[in-house]
Amino acid sequence: MKVLITGGTGFIGAQLADHLLRAGSVQLEGEQPQHIEKIVLFDAFSGERQWHDPRIKVVTGDICDAQTIALATENVDLVWHLAAVVSAQAESDFDLGMQVNVKGLWNLLEALRGSRVRPRLVNASGFAVFGGDLPEVVTDQTAPLPKTSYGMQKAVGELLVADYARKGFVDGRSLRLPTIVVRPGKPNKAASTFVSSIIREPLAGQTAVCPVRADTLVYISSPRRALESMLHAMSLSEKKLGLEPTIPLPGITVSIGEMVSVLERVAGPAATRLILWEPNAEIQRIVSSWPARVEAARAKALGFRSDGDFEAIVRAHIEDESVSQWWLR
Amino acid sequence: MKVLITGGTGFIGAQLADHLLRAGSVQLEGEQPQHIEKIVLFDAFSGERQWHDPRIKVVTGDICDAQTIALATENVDLVWHLAAVVSAQAESDFDLGMQVNVKGLWNLLEALRGSRVRPRLVNASGFAVFGGDLPEVVTDQTAPLPKTSYGMQKAVGELLVADYARKGFVDGRSLRLPTIVVRPGKPNKAASTFVSSIIREPLAGQTAVCPVRADTLVYISSPRRALESMLHAMSLSEKKLGLEPTIPLPGITVSIGEMVSVLERVAGPAATRLILWEPNAEIQRIVSSWPARVEAARAKALGFRSDGDFEAIVRAHIEDESVSQWWLR
Repeated sequence: MKVLITGGTGFIGAQLADHLLRAGSVQLEGEQPQHIEKIVLFDAFSGERQWHDPRIKVVTGDICDAQTIALATENVDLVWHLAAVVSAQAESDFDLGMQVNVKGLWNLLEALRGSRVRPRLVNASGFAVFGGDLPEVVTDQTAPLPKTSYGMQKAVGELLVADYARKGFVDGRSLRLPTIVVRPGKPNKAASTFVSSIIREPLAGQTAVCPVRADTLVYISSPRRALESMLHAMSLSEKKLGLEPTIPLPGITVSIGEMVSVLERVAGPAATRLILWEPNAEIQRIVSSWPARVEAARAKALGFRSDGDFEAIVRAHIEDESVSQWWLR
Repeated sequence: MKVLITGGTGFIGAQLADHLLRAGSVQLEGEQPQHIEKIVLFDAFSGERQWHDPRIKVVTGDICDAQTIALATENVDLVWHLAAVVSAQAESDFDLGMQVNVKGLWNLLEALRGSRVRPRLVNASGFAVFGGDLPEVVTDQTAPLPKTSYGMQKAVGELLVADYARKGFVDGRSLRLPTIVVRPGKPNKAASTFVSSIIREPLAGQTAVCPVRADTLVYISSPRRALESMLHAMSLSEKKLGLEPTIPLPGITVSIGEMVSVLERVAGPAATRLILWEPNAEIQRIVSSWPARVEAARAKALGFRSDGDFEAIVRAHIEDESVSQWWLR
């Protein structure tokens, strides 16, 4: 099998690649495990990491360029589409967001449509497709009325993938992912990047800015659960998926204040004192426009799972990223 | 004021132009009536009609061509975007639908974004954005999950217009129009075209094919109401419109069987005998995927109206199109 991961040098892309390299094969529902021959990591940036496994090929280029994407998608069987201009950047640079998030996906779908085999595609979407007046709990039937350009572009992407799948051009499915916390590495240009920073940086003994109120609710998933969902989404047969290939995922709802309390429980007040509370109206507006409570009935029925509680997420981060636990010294 | 009507040589476009020429001015809510200097009818086809009024300019071209659209949108104040590849054609020619319905609108929005003034845009959408398992009554909060490429493309268009409006690039609003019945003229490539044909052709003494079952429900509007809604949508101030610029319009729900009964009441059994019942599974699938009952609460609150009953629609068609009432002879 040949695998393509767009946005492949990013954090989730690299975690996926690591998992696939370790596993050596991929198990699709109702099929025999299939050997992985090649993993193409396509990205606008080559990233810092050096890959030494001969099965990995890093390809950098513009996702809007038809020729580049034709090469990257050649003979591909499985595609995870993670490449995106994230929320705050798509809001400040509208044109870049439209190019990558809409034209880039459209270009990818056209390339896959021309494939010898009908590739299976997992498209990463998110709850930013929602905005405005929302019900107390967002269900699988709630209308996406985005109030950010990123959310609009992700909603457009879901519609494109669903119709390319319905037409039989690709075997496509989209996941609405909760905000992933705690992301390792550095802050990115997502409006939600602080949700990871306010945990990750204090745990590393560094300061972090919190731009929203403590009572702000966020709907989150751990990196472990996000990776598990990415793999499970790929394994699901078209038959099981049915006619609605957009799947809002389960997550947990926490307030920023609760997150900080958990941080204090884990690493003490010396850690939480590293959080600088500096309100930012635009970030508050964007984050508050997203839903905090999601039913995710269909995803649960399809076998997707959420995390237990936030403390378990923080402890998993410390373990996965070998955080040096300075507060124990 | 300079007006642009895309799809301007089509039936609604021409009716709009006729109305504006007669009125001589346009009345926007909270503003003085404004004189109409120029009406550009932009279309892929020049149409059969000859226009003699010096205020009318017919421009033919490709809506995806940036230069053509830059010329058509120059100094424009008001835009009705009616150009579209319709439902059955967008289903059979996926690429053409994507080009005109998605890329064409995107191109138009980009041209308007670069305008000196911020133009007001009324974008024609429809209930084809819905599909699949629908609630008994579709509300303003029901999620569009289209099951046709046309519906997907219209849903994408609504998202684009809403975000270009939110960003302040245009003063945009989209109308979800019911199926317009009785359309004058000839059948088009919409899956719903028969809904007009089965009334219009028998009234003209000609046969028409009905490709769906008599119990099929349709959600409809008369041409008079559609025109009224187009004008009302343009008049609404941004403030009144609020943050949700997509407006599902009121209409009436009738079964094909009820429509045929009304035809018989108006023109006798000699008229209904001209209907040839020839089931077509694809047309049945497309039409049945659309909602039949729509609440349209917000539109009603904004002053949009539906028709009274279907008999009044048929009698208005006879009057407006000077049908020769052969059955009275």
